[in-house]
Amino acid sequence: MTDLPEVSGLTIGILGGTGDQGKGLARRFALAGHPVLIGSRDAGRAQEAADSIGNGARGAENAAVAAEADIVIVAVPWDGHKATLSTLREPLAGKIVVDCVNPLGFDKQGAYALPVEEGSAAQQAAAVLPDSRVVAAFHHVSAVLLLDPVVDKVDLDVLVLGDDREATDTVQALASVIAGVRGVYGGRLRNAHQVEALTANLISINRRYKAHAGVRLTDI
Amino acid sequence: MTDLPEVSGLTIGILGGTGDQGKGLARRFALAGHPVLIGSRDAGRAQEAADSIGNGARGAENAAVAAEADIVIVAVPWDGHKATLSTLREPLAGKIVVDCVNPLGFDKQGAYALPVEEGSAAQQAAAVLPDSRVVAAFHHVSAVLLLDPVVDKVDLDVLVLGDDREATDTVQALASVIAGVRGVYGGRLRNAHQVEALTANLISINRRYKAHAGVRLTDI
Repeated sequence: MTDLPEVSGLTIGILGGTGDQGKGLARRFALAGHPVLIGSRDAGRAQEAADSIGNGARGAENAAVAAEADIVIVAVPWDGHKATLSTLREPLAGKIVVDCVNPLGFDKQGAYALPVEEGSAAQQAAAVLPDSRVVAAFHHVSAVLLLDPVVDKVDLDVLVLGDDREATDTVQALASVIAGVRGVYGGRLRNAHQVEALTANLISINRRYKAHAGVRLTDI
Repeated sequence: MTDLPEVSGLTIGILGGTGDQGKGLARRFALAGHPVLIGSRDAGRAQEAADSIGNGARGAENAAVAAEADIVIVAVPWDGHKATLSTLREPLAGKIVVDCVNPLGFDKQGAYALPVEEGSAAQQAAAVLPDSRVVAAFHHVSAVLLLDPVVDKVDLDVLVLGDDREATDTVQALASVIAGVRGVYGGRLRNAHQVEALTANLISINRRYKAHAGVRLTDI
């Protein structure tokens, strides 16, 4: 593993931070000492989520979070992904934007990957936010584990994908502030689809083994 | 992990067994005591590959291997995948057919996933072989490690996908005969694409970290 940049003190904004995934990540970053901003369409709901996390987290509307945060994580539902990001091009310009959205469908047989015109949620974000440094990461972390107060370490590697080396290095470092997690470079943005889609397999695995499965890479 | 069926003594046939991936798997199954049949379009090349493996491996044309083996692994190049399997519908009828083919393209930026009309190589196999029990597995094992005589354990989980529980259980058991490997259920065949495509990410990871990365699942 190479040396990664220093990220301590960076303010982390989480769009769609009232969902379980966003709230779970917010909680872990707040526990690691980062200033955390929870974003939502509704400032009141954002503040509620921030209060439930504590550790100094604050809530605000998505646009205010996008403007204030140093690094912005996109954890909105896939349904509203394109529409939400389209309104935030300006406040997100120049920033590292970390997409962790998994475009999945569900039916009686479980989860499956949805087709995405741009190839993946992350590539859609890059298309809608041409002035931002889009990175894909945090797809496989279990919200249940992130939110569980008795889980002090989360045992998995976060695959970090992107075409901007400085940005992926920064997000690898950010992933690694979560106790137990290692941020690992996972390839270019054009290979993000399968990482997002693999979440469907993890859901099947969790069902079969009654687990909260994570991915570790061997030999690195 | 649940109890898996007994697979010792089963004859393993490997179509396209003269390639590195096929030869590597053949070597590990032969080392584990399985009768192994290497298949190729050319019986002479198949026999050469079998001789290089030793441990009782034999070579033959693909059709003869398909007819004789108990379980058949498909390790042909993606280019010839559909054409080769189309000719083998009869000898493969009723058998467990394990597809490990990764439809990938390569350019200056590395590997990327190719689109597959049927969704994935495994789904293509299922479409072409409606009388077989198609399972997807062995996508991420490094041929280099499988073939390396000083590597006595291969440190990874083999994700096994399919819609026939008895067949996936059998292939999980088969994967687990390779020292170091654990066979893990990985979902239905409709979720095979991302497992195949993830090989592109592993290639990027191997390049970045100078490794032979494998995948392990945590919490199961």
